[in-house]
Amino acid sequence: MSKLLLTNIGMLATPLGKGPKKGAEQGEIQIWKDAWVLCEDGLISQVGTGPAPAVEAAQVVDAQGSLVTPGLVDAHTHLIFGGWRQNELGLKLHGKTYLEIQNAGGGIQSTTNATRSATEEELTAKAAKALDEMMSFGVTTCEAKSGYGLALEHELKQLRAIRRLQEEHPMDVVATFMGAHLVPAEYKDNRAEYIRLVCEEMMPAVKEQGIARFCDVFCEADTFSVEEARQVLEAGLKYGLRPKIHADEIEAIGGSQLAGEIGAISAEHLIVCPPEGIASMARGNVVACLLPATSFNLGSTFAPARDMVNAGVAVAMATDFNPGSCPCLNLQFVINLGCLKYRLTPEEVLTAVTLNAAAAIDLADKVGSVEPGKQADLVIWDAPDLDYICYRVGSNLTRGVIKKGVIVR
Amino acid sequence: MSKLLLTNIGMLATPLGKGPKKGAEQGEIQIWKDAWVLCEDGLISQVGTGPAPAVEAAQVVDAQGSLVTPGLVDAHTHLIFGGWRQNELGLKLHGKTYLEIQNAGGGIQSTTNATRSATEEELTAKAAKALDEMMSFGVTTCEAKSGYGLALEHELKQLRAIRRLQEEHPMDVVATFMGAHLVPAEYKDNRAEYIRLVCEEMMPAVKEQGIARFCDVFCEADTFSVEEARQVLEAGLKYGLRPKIHADEIEAIGGSQLAGEIGAISAEHLIVCPPEGIASMARGNVVACLLPATSFNLGSTFAPARDMVNAGVAVAMATDFNPGSCPCLNLQFVINLGCLKYRLTPEEVLTAVTLNAAAAIDLADKVGSVEPGKQADLVIWDAPDLDYICYRVGSNLTRGVIKKGVIVR
Repeated sequence: MSKLLLTNIGMLATPLGKGPKKGAEQGEIQIWKDAWVLCEDGLISQVGTGPAPAVEAAQVVDAQGSLVTPGLVDAHTHLIFGGWRQNELGLKLHGKTYLEIQNAGGGIQSTTNATRSATEEELTAKAAKALDEMMSFGVTTCEAKSGYGLALEHELKQLRAIRRLQEEHPMDVVATFMGAHLVPAEYKDNRAEYIRLVCEEMMPAVKEQGIARFCDVFCEADTFSVEEARQVLEAGLKYGLRPKIHADEIEAIGGSQLAGEIGAISAEHLIVCPPEGIASMARGNVVACLLPATSFNLGSTFAPARDMVNAGVAVAMATDFNPGSCPCLNLQFVINLGCLKYRLTPEEVLTAVTLNAAAAIDLADKVGSVEPGKQADLVIWDAPDLDYICYRVGSNLTRGVIKKGVIVR
Repeated sequence: MSKLLLTNIGMLATPLGKGPKKGAEQGEIQIWKDAWVLCEDGLISQVGTGPAPAVEAAQVVDAQGSLVTPGLVDAHTHLIFGGWRQNELGLKLHGKTYLEIQNAGGGIQSTTNATRSATEEELTAKAAKALDEMMSFGVTTCEAKSGYGLALEHELKQLRAIRRLQEEHPMDVVATFMGAHLVPAEYKDNRAEYIRLVCEEMMPAVKEQGIARFCDVFCEADTFSVEEARQVLEAGLKYGLRPKIHADEIEAIGGSQLAGEIGAISAEHLIVCPPEGIASMARGNVVACLLPATSFNLGSTFAPARDMVNAGVAVAMATDFNPGSCPCLNLQFVINLGCLKYRLTPEEVLTAVTLNAAAAIDLADKVGSVEPGKQADLVIWDAPDLDYICYRVGSNLTRGVIKKGVIVR
C-alpha cells in the first residue's frame, strides 16, 4: 500500500461534494489553515488540521506553508491535431481577410488536412507533449475531443490516440467524439449525407470500440443548425454517448436552449448566451463550460458568467486548447481571466476549474475536490493563498503536482 | 578568449541598427534562414547563413532548426518592492471600492510600507528571483525603478538593491530613480516640500553614488501635474539623469506633450495619448514605451500603438512588472498582447521588445539586435518561426537563453 502524507499546508482550499456547485454554492469553498492530507493507494484517505499524524511507511512531502488545491480539471480541449496555424495570425495582422486565408489553404480545413495526414503515433506524441505541459500547470484530468478527422478512419485515429494517452500518460483523459465539428469540404454540397455518416457509421464504430464517453456538436450558424445538432446528439444517446454542445459562440441560434431540453451534461462557449438559454440550462442541470481564453484570442466579448451563477447554473472554465481559435493550454491563465473578465471571485473560479469542471465530464464523484474517497490529485502552489494564484499573471505558479498519490512534478 | 558557435538556426529574426526604428522601419526586420552566429568574448563577432564554419575551441550549440532572436529587453519594471497585493483582487471582486481598500491599508502606500520595512538584502533576494524568471522567459536586459521608498533612505536602498543585482545577476539591469512616483502620505498636505526633497536631497545623493541613469516621474491628475513633472525632470537633467515620464495612463493632462518638449528618452503607458502628444513625441524623438499587460490587468483600453507607428514614433513594449497594477513579469505575454490588442505585426512586435526597448533605456548601441559588435544576448525558441511565438499564448517558449555568449538557461 503506497502512502503519501502532505504536511505543512498553509492554506488548503477546495470545494466539497460529488456534484456541481450552483448559485451561491459555487463560491462556498472550504478553507483550512495549517492542514495535512494523507493519500493511500492513489486516494485521499484523511484530511486534517494542526500537527500531522505519524504515518508508518508514508512518503512525507512538506508543502512549506503554501497553498494546496485539488488538481485542476480542463474540461474542454481539442488536444489531438496535426500542425499549427501561426501563419494565420501574421496574415490577419498584415491585412488578409478570413476568406483570403481560407483560399490560401488556411482555416480549420488546414488542421483537418494536417490531422488526416498524421499517423496515430505522431498525433499521440504531439499530444503527450501538450499533456506534460498541462500537467506542469497543475492540470491532472482533462477532456479531449476528436473532430479534426471528419472521416470514419481519421476520427477513430484521433480517438485511438486519446486511448493510448489514457494508458500511457499519468493524466486522466476522457474522450469526446465530435465528428460533427464541421462539415468537411468534400461534403459541402451534401450536408445530410455527412450527418448520416456521423450518426450511422462513425457512432456505431465508436460504441463498438468503446473509445468515447461523450458526443459533442458545433451548433452555430455556419456549422450545424439546432435541428441538425439535436439529430446528432439524439443519435449519440442511442449509442450511450452523453451529449455536449458548442453553443452560442458567435450567434445565439438556440444551442443553449437545446442543451437544456436534451439534458446535455455541459454546454460550451456560451459567449452570447441569451437569458432563455441560461434558463434552459438551469432547468436541465447543464454545466456551463466557459472558455475565456478563446474570447481573449478572438478579441470577442466574454460569456455572461455572473448571470449564469445568479441563475443557478454551475459554471466550469476550460482552455479550449486548439490550433485555431485558442492556441493556449494554460489553465492558470484561464483562472486569471475568470477573475479579470468574468468578475468571478477567486472562490468561484476555483470551483469552476475543479469540481464543476469535473462535473462537466461526469467525474465529480472521483476528482475535483480534496476529501476522503476522492482521487489523490493535488497541486502544491508557489503561493501563500488562493487570491495569489488569481492575481499573478504569466508565471507558472505550481511548485508540485500530485497525481493519484504520486508526485509527477 | 571564450567562443560560442550557435548553429542550425532555422530562422534568425532581428531588427538591425544602433538606434530606434520608426514608422515603416519598425516592421522591416532581417530574416535569415539556415543561419549561424559566432560569439566571442561576450560579443557577436560573425553572423552567416549556410554551413557554419569550423571554429577552433568554440563551444557549439545546435539550435535544432528553430527560431533565434535577440535577447528580449524589458524597458519598464518596478522590480524592487516589498510584499504583494493579491488581497486587493479578492476584495475588489467581492465588491470593495478603491477607497475602502485604501482605508483598509491597501493600495500603493501598502507597497511603500512593505518596501520601507524590508532590508536591502530582502529586496535584493526577492528581485533576484524575479530576474531569474524573467530570464527564463527570454529577457536578457531590463530596467528597474525605485519609487516605493519615497524617502531618501529608502529610495537609495532600492537603488542599492539594483546595483547589487547588476553585480551579482547575469541580467543587465539599468536603474531609474523615481522618487516622484507619488507623494507619500506624510507629505500629503505639503506637496512642494516633497518635490523639493526629491530634487534637492534625493537627486544629489543619487548622483553622488552614481546609482541611476534615468529619472522618471508619474505625471497624472492624482499624482504630479505637468508643471511639477517638468520641475522634477529638469532637476534630474542637472544631475545627469535622463528624463522618462509616466504619461497619459488614465487622463491626458499633457504628459506626452511634455515628453517631447523636454526631450525625454521615453514616455511610458500612453494609454489615452492624444494626437498632439503623439506629434510632440515624434518631434522630440521620444520612444513610446507601451505597457499592454497593465491595460490587461486594469481592464482599461489599449494605447494607440498603430497611430504612433504611423506618426513615426518608435514603439517599445515592456511589462511594467509591479505588485499593484501589473503583477506580471512575462514579456512573452506582452508579445501576445502586442499582436492581439495593439494589432502590431509580429515583425513590429519583435522590434518593440528588442531594439526599440533597448533604445528606450539608451542601450541600442549595445543590445537589441543580432549583428557583429553587439552583445551576444540571444534567445533560442521552441518555435519554428516568429509568427509562432506571437500566436501561442500561455506557454514559456524559450528553449535556451544566451547572455554575453554564455548559456544561462
